[in-house]
Amino acid sequence: MEETVVKRIGINRLVDKVCSPEEAAALIQNGNIVGMSGFTRAGDAKVVPLALAERVKSEALKIDVYTGASLGPEVDQVLAQAGGIRKRGPYQGDPAIRNLINTGEVLYVDAHLSHNAELVRQGIIGPIDFAIIEATAITSDGLLVPTTSVGNSPIYAKYAKNIIVELNLAHSESFVGVHDIYIPEDQGERKPIPILKPVDRIGDIGIKIDTEKIIAIVVSNEKDAPSLIVDPDDETQEMAEHLLNFLRSEIRAGRLTNKLAPLQSGVGSVANAVLEGFKDSEFEDLVIFSEVLQDAVFNLIDAGKVSFASCTSITISEDLQKKVYGNIENYADKIIIRPQEISNHPEVIRRLGLIAINAALEVDIYGNVNSTHVGGTKMMNGIGGSGDFTRNSRLSIFVTKSYAKGGKLSSIVPMVAHHDHTEHDVHVIVTEQGVADLRGLAPKERVPLIIENCVHPDFKQQLWDYYHESVALTGNAHTPHNMEKALSWHVSAAKSGTMKM
Amino acid sequence: MEETVVKRIGINRLVDKVCSPEEAAALIQNGNIVGMSGFTRAGDAKVVPLALAERVKSEALKIDVYTGASLGPEVDQVLAQAGGIRKRGPYQGDPAIRNLINTGEVLYVDAHLSHNAELVRQGIIGPIDFAIIEATAITSDGLLVPTTSVGNSPIYAKYAKNIIVELNLAHSESFVGVHDIYIPEDQGERKPIPILKPVDRIGDIGIKIDTEKIIAIVVSNEKDAPSLIVDPDDETQEMAEHLLNFLRSEIRAGRLTNKLAPLQSGVGSVANAVLEGFKDSEFEDLVIFSEVLQDAVFNLIDAGKVSFASCTSITISEDLQKKVYGNIENYADKIIIRPQEISNHPEVIRRLGLIAINAALEVDIYGNVNSTHVGGTKMMNGIGGSGDFTRNSRLSIFVTKSYAKGGKLSSIVPMVAHHDHTEHDVHVIVTEQGVADLRGLAPKERVPLIIENCVHPDFKQQLWDYYHESVALTGNAHTPHNMEKALSWHVSAAKSGTMKM
Repeated sequence: MEETVVKRIGINRLVDKVCSPEEAAALIQNGNIVGMSGFTRAGDAKVVPLALAERVKSEALKIDVYTGASLGPEVDQVLAQAGGIRKRGPYQGDPAIRNLINTGEVLYVDAHLSHNAELVRQGIIGPIDFAIIEATAITSDGLLVPTTSVGNSPIYAKYAKNIIVELNLAHSESFVGVHDIYIPEDQGERKPIPILKPVDRIGDIGIKIDTEKIIAIVVSNEKDAPSLIVDPDDETQEMAEHLLNFLRSEIRAGRLTNKLAPLQSGVGSVANAVLEGFKDSEFEDLVIFSEVLQDAVFNLIDAGKVSFASCTSITISEDLQKKVYGNIENYADKIIIRPQEISNHPEVIRRLGLIAINAALEVDIYGNVNSTHVGGTKMMNGIGGSGDFTRNSRLSIFVTKSYAKGGKLSSIVPMVAHHDHTEHDVHVIVTEQGVADLRGLAPKERVPLIIENCVHPDFKQQLWDYYHESVALTGNAHTPHNMEKALSWHVSAAKSGTMKM
Repeated sequence: MEETVVKRIGINRLVDKVCSPEEAAALIQNGNIVGMSGFTRAGDAKVVPLALAERVKSEALKIDVYTGASLGPEVDQVLAQAGGIRKRGPYQGDPAIRNLINTGEVLYVDAHLSHNAELVRQGIIGPIDFAIIEATAITSDGLLVPTTSVGNSPIYAKYAKNIIVELNLAHSESFVGVHDIYIPEDQGERKPIPILKPVDRIGDIGIKIDTEKIIAIVVSNEKDAPSLIVDPDDETQEMAEHLLNFLRSEIRAGRLTNKLAPLQSGVGSVANAVLEGFKDSEFEDLVIFSEVLQDAVFNLIDAGKVSFASCTSITISEDLQKKVYGNIENYADKIIIRPQEISNHPEVIRRLGLIAINAALEVDIYGNVNSTHVGGTKMMNGIGGSGDFTRNSRLSIFVTKSYAKGGKLSSIVPMVAHHDHTEHDVHVIVTEQGVADLRGLAPKERVPLIIENCVHPDFKQQLWDYYHESVALTGNAHTPHNMEKALSWHVSAAKSGTMKM
């Protein structure tokens, strides 16, 4: 065995557990419930799932897969397409498994990412047969050190009957010390989570495990699937500028300083582009308390704009992977990777007073947000952490382009086709057209702000017509709607491909 | 001046501030923003608003009224109907103001009750010209001791330019010591809220105020408007029995003991009736951590079933008022009244692992809940604390009768007409028909449980027909819906008074 493998397994007797991916995959049985590491294509188990997918080709075998969040292609493409997944939660983001979810072949539980651990504690998710966890190392005192994400690995490792470790040599041992693992006590015995600032370390550098449960260790050398961020375009830059101007107005109102407040930013190209907008701004000494660190955060760290970033996952492009993971020691004092139960915990989010910036699929004239369902029926990715952050932040901001499909669809509609964030939760909407600040407003006060500031000109009059008709129909009720037409824009889009009527 | 008044004003120089309701009301100007005490018709300012309503009869004067929650008739009937209210938040529950909200005469901001204080801190609600607060006493060290609710009074008193005190002699001085006032620091400087058990006292017996801001003290002797709970009927008793049986099954599953977990119960007759169901049960040593204590809680305390109850408001019937308020010293070691920011705080709710029981207006086949809007357009009361509790509890249970309007309407519909609690947030639905436990289930797994266990027999086939048609239409998508028919049950109800089609 390679010396480097032995060196990374700090407990001698565990060296005997090293086996091939095929041997490890052979342990898994049809019907098993499996908790895997991995969050937004980072730190996910890779080689054991691929070996399992091979088995599935010649054997009727389906498992339930719970993770941190979305995974790379090994599980959500290869294993899923081989027919190896019965049920999946709490998040996915891959076209392959998405298609299986939307044709009824895979069951999907789309859940708030901070809630998953409680369901494991209660046994609602479980009993967990296997935890499969990618690790940098096992320390001599029995700590399992994750790689580029922590996600739900601590809670899966705690509750699983057996643990399979994927020891990934692609990551430098300098990753040891970057993580901060803290598991809250059971409810009823629970103490406050002692994070007072994003920089606070409150736990261990790895996951405390019962090493007797380690049934197999598989060595791998696979990088994370790189993130698929597309470059900012004119409209994302307009959205970024609108957002920065809104934050400037908050400073003028005395609610923020130019250090702002800890920032959370959602996953994807739009959120990344918006965050890039801070680079050439006057804001400084920014701190991130987020779920996922994308390229923009590291660019902001390098530019001296961000002084510290807390997360549960690092999901970056191929070039940045080389730069950051090749020199992780340079970033070790500027980042912490935490369990998603902590990064997304309502207690911490509310205490710190975050500014949350998340992407919407569509928004309606009263401020309800659809984050998940295309046309109200087909799952896109999932709610992820957007609910954890939106509900509890100081400022809950949603960003979306005002239109989709080359202008045929409006992202602002009379009524969203699926509700993920309700009118009670959404503070600010930003499109390339402008900003609507909905805080403290009654539904009918929100309508002109949303229509006039955020809607594409092609759809303004049509929305006003819907609203005025609804006001007349309901006698100016609290939330005017015409139930016969509230979803008609989606009907039109499904039938004729356009919301222009 | 009566000796008892002087005795209750612990700071001598403030005795000079005693004046008539008319003199106090004369201080308020058109356009003022006023924060008032009062939560669910308890502990609300009464005589100053009535005097203000008199002024409004002969003078163009409108104010914005923010409270804890719903008020008695003085504000939400008399002042509202006199035309004295421009905007109202964060909750109401009176037919008079409801009618004005639903005809566009009063603006209403229906908000999560734990969020209101943050909006005051940020100045989104404000600047607050007056806080009008009902009090039992002012202590010699400048603490303002509330009466039967705390609500948002601490934050209004802190941020208001002027404070008007309604010193209510109807309440015994034995109320001093029942409250526990704790105001979190500003976000960024905030510490953990140190409640580890519902019984924990963490603050002061009254609201620390700048006594220089007390501009008037008005003496009153008015009882709270009694609660309007109706007696349990056969169906609420069936719902209670279903709920208890569900909790028994949780005990069998090892997730609870017969002491359960701290209980939260929503406001209203159904929630009260369900709680009454514990009286003749095997459950014991129960603890309440709730928003409002209704009759049932005191009956359970008297029966020895409940050992402690934490709340922000006590709202009880006339008979029970005499018994409890006449002997408040007998209950003083068994109850705490807290600010609503604390009683409803996500940090505390999640830490304690509450069992939350709230009433739904309607539910849909995927578990979304409408708590607020009749027919999707007309405001009923408001979301209140139901979102604070539902999102963060160990168990989030919604109760509703399966039908309304003598059986013409189904409370379970294809798609709710307004979304207050989304599919991501709702664990369990209870009707008089039975229980649907939705935890850990994909949308299509929830449908048969909801339809078969919770729906009235008259509507089962019609819901199945809708679902099967939607499955076929969408190719078995993640959340099958027919956008042309999703709201058709509400259209039918509005047009012909029935959902039977």
